[in-house]
Amino acid sequence: MPGTSDPRRVLIASNRGPISFVRGEEGHVVAKRGQGGLVTALTGAVQGTGGLWIASAMSEEDRSKAGKRFDVDVGATRYSVRYLAIDPPTYAGFYDGISNRVLWFVHHLLWDLPRAPIFRGLARDWDRYRSVNQAFTRALAEEGGTSDSTRYLVQDYHLTLVPAMLRRARPNARISHFSHIPFAGPDYFAILPEWARQEMLAGLLGADVLGFQAPAWAANFLMCCRTLSGAKVDLRRGLVRWQDRDVRVRVYPISIDPEGLRVEAAAPEVARARKEMLRIAGGARLLVRVDRAELSKNILRGLLAFEALLESQPARRREVTFVAHLSPSRQRIREYRDYTNECVGAAERINRRFGRAGWTPIRLTMKDDYARALAAYQLYDVLLVNPVMDGMNLVAKEGPVLNERDGVLILSETAGAFTELGAHAVPVNPFDVEGTARAIGVALDMDPVERQRRLRGLRTAVVRNPIERWVEAQLEDLEVGGR
Amino acid sequence: MPGTSDPRRVLIASNRGPISFVRGEEGHVVAKRGQGGLVTALTGAVQGTGGLWIASAMSEEDRSKAGKRFDVDVGATRYSVRYLAIDPPTYAGFYDGISNRVLWFVHHLLWDLPRAPIFRGLARDWDRYRSVNQAFTRALAEEGGTSDSTRYLVQDYHLTLVPAMLRRARPNARISHFSHIPFAGPDYFAILPEWARQEMLAGLLGADVLGFQAPAWAANFLMCCRTLSGAKVDLRRGLVRWQDRDVRVRVYPISIDPEGLRVEAAAPEVARARKEMLRIAGGARLLVRVDRAELSKNILRGLLAFEALLESQPARRREVTFVAHLSPSRQRIREYRDYTNECVGAAERINRRFGRAGWTPIRLTMKDDYARALAAYQLYDVLLVNPVMDGMNLVAKEGPVLNERDGVLILSETAGAFTELGAHAVPVNPFDVEGTARAIGVALDMDPVERQRRLRGLRTAVVRNPIERWVEAQLEDLEVGGR
Repeated sequence: MPGTSDPRRVLIASNRGPISFVRGEEGHVVAKRGQGGLVTALTGAVQGTGGLWIASAMSEEDRSKAGKRFDVDVGATRYSVRYLAIDPPTYAGFYDGISNRVLWFVHHLLWDLPRAPIFRGLARDWDRYRSVNQAFTRALAEEGGTSDSTRYLVQDYHLTLVPAMLRRARPNARISHFSHIPFAGPDYFAILPEWARQEMLAGLLGADVLGFQAPAWAANFLMCCRTLSGAKVDLRRGLVRWQDRDVRVRVYPISIDPEGLRVEAAAPEVARARKEMLRIAGGARLLVRVDRAELSKNILRGLLAFEALLESQPARRREVTFVAHLSPSRQRIREYRDYTNECVGAAERINRRFGRAGWTPIRLTMKDDYARALAAYQLYDVLLVNPVMDGMNLVAKEGPVLNERDGVLILSETAGAFTELGAHAVPVNPFDVEGTARAIGVALDMDPVERQRRLRGLRTAVVRNPIERWVEAQLEDLEVGGR
Repeated sequence: MPGTSDPRRVLIASNRGPISFVRGEEGHVVAKRGQGGLVTALTGAVQGTGGLWIASAMSEEDRSKAGKRFDVDVGATRYSVRYLAIDPPTYAGFYDGISNRVLWFVHHLLWDLPRAPIFRGLARDWDRYRSVNQAFTRALAEEGGTSDSTRYLVQDYHLTLVPAMLRRARPNARISHFSHIPFAGPDYFAILPEWARQEMLAGLLGADVLGFQAPAWAANFLMCCRTLSGAKVDLRRGLVRWQDRDVRVRVYPISIDPEGLRVEAAAPEVARARKEMLRIAGGARLLVRVDRAELSKNILRGLLAFEALLESQPARRREVTFVAHLSPSRQRIREYRDYTNECVGAAERINRRFGRAGWTPIRLTMKDDYARALAAYQLYDVLLVNPVMDGMNLVAKEGPVLNERDGVLILSETAGAFTELGAHAVPVNPFDVEGTARAIGVALDMDPVERQRRLRGLRTAVVRNPIERWVEAQLEDLEVGGR
């Protein structure tokens, strides 16, 4: 790996940090570490480099620590964090107003275009988005200093303006930005006002390397850059010439930390959740979904597909129970709340229609309960991952690692994960409710040898591309080329 | 023009023909000629070549003439037509089911993706779509014979499978296909099931030349072809290598026949409609829109923008009346009916809110009345053309040709026409209601010299690219290259 002999410092910027502090019921402060492999991988990259992780303060306790760096010890990991305290109205415009009501929608194609968006107050919210990006940039520039050895890893759609702002403050900096979500093609991207599009593309192009989860999103970004005056795009080589620099557009499919996940799944609360789930299932086979309650996840069509299956194949009734394990997400925003309510309403309607004594067709829960999610991974016979559109979808990687029943994965062709896992999954077009119903039937009926073979294939694919590689590849690419 | 010395025969295929026959109230048969420059241009191309126009029978009278060619005389134009009688359930699946509920939606990005489509009965409707395409192909192959001198001009999204079917029947045929509507990028196109996408792309790639209205739609098509196994795409040169042939992807922005339009506008019923419109306006200035009542036209946001203007600038009240001239379209389909009802409801609500004795803010009409549309073109002070997405939008070309008040054109950046006319229009992002309200204000306040200058600019742009050139360019490109 080139450059590892340098005293390289890694600075990470992301809206949500690796850890958050909350005051417990008895008054003492509790550290809540972010779940999943991403935190492990990125803190691993920071650790020992003298770098740090910069994030928005999420709680009152975080806020009290804001403005200066402090050290964190989690098990064997030790790294530094610096929180930014953003005032609540600014944060609301940045997070709810732009990030989750506008950018999330544009990159996942979620609008009912004849009717929405209508962009009331967009310019005001955009000012707030810009000022949070500025706050991150100031902190990065300050922590990074003028040293050539600093490497900036900027994360996701919340911080698209940071690379160009940081480039102005630190012209020779080595900057990467990674989009954890999809990127819209030029038509859908054109829903944004022209000034916002230009600012965002120019913002990203401040980086040296732009990372995406899948080739399709990288191509979309490049096609959007063709509409930017002054940018020269080489689609085949993944290059944008911009302000006398070459910006490289690369694909780094994110992954998980299988070992860490297995350790988490060995916890006693997972065993308890598992026992409870088995009791509830009462011998029925388990169709499972695990998702944030969110519009891109396609929860509604999943329920309708299950209904179509029960309707067309009465023998399936009582045979299978659908565990829809949902965690609340962005429920302050009306669009998310409305969608969640529609999902709950559909589940209730289907339960009224098909439920019988001793068998409730759908068990929909809506709460943060990570232990129960892990139990559901262990127990599923069929795992339904049918997003409308998804940058990657880590459920499709986590489930197979923990599953103990040779469970079958049903996976949307439109999830980033399909590139790596599609060959071992039952593919679905997420818009095709009848097709999804058939896929559930196929998965339930699949013979044991085939189920086992596929589960092995999924696990191999996940292990072949561990999360550490995702970080390393980006750091390596930051060393290559230069200007 | 190469090839004009050959005895070239031009065959045109389109769902709707250039003329339709209906039995009048007193029992005699009346010929209704299609409006607009397209019919003039295409019949001009057919005329005198011994070729003909093949179309679906639309009326009982058409149906009685179906199956064999017959001659039509309209003024100085003489050409042949052959109708295809499609049985009603097949036609409904082809026209309502696939063309207007699926393909129209996919290419104009009209779905509320978290909820629609759900594709119930798609495969059955697709079979019907395919069988209508087959019927067109059979008629074309029969009429074209095995002669090398036949040129096939296949029109629009209704007939995307014809080129490949015709290629199988007539391997050496020279075939072009023109898309009058946009073409979706790969993400939105991926909403269709994979088999449908493959069949449609392979269907179009049966042609020698594929025509689009604007560079963006051509690029989208090429990007979709990159997902088709076996196709090799050269984005820069607009070429797809497919089954050992080169398919050329070209842009031919369609236009109108200004002379013919002026003749139509001189009719006495236009003068009558004009008088009536002036009476209704009662001295107020006129904001006008002329559209089919259809989801891509963005009628709802146009009304909301007018409301925002009346709300934020009370002095505008009584100053201006909004004539929304809508013609019913596809009202058999629920999505179109619901949208139309929402538009009517919004207009009524705004009229209740702001209307005063002697002034009704919005005059929304919903009927086929071409004379009144032409009168509205003559009289507008501001013409609002704000589609969500539009292949071209000929209203933006027709209006300026007839306008007598140095009226100002407000035009969506997302209309194909924006490429040619944008420099002389007030541009709008169609999703930005506040921005559209401001644009209406800017247009109303524009000084007379600037208005005049812009109107001249629009007329020059229209005249510079007459409809005849659109046909000629396609026929020329069919002569070039070959295999």
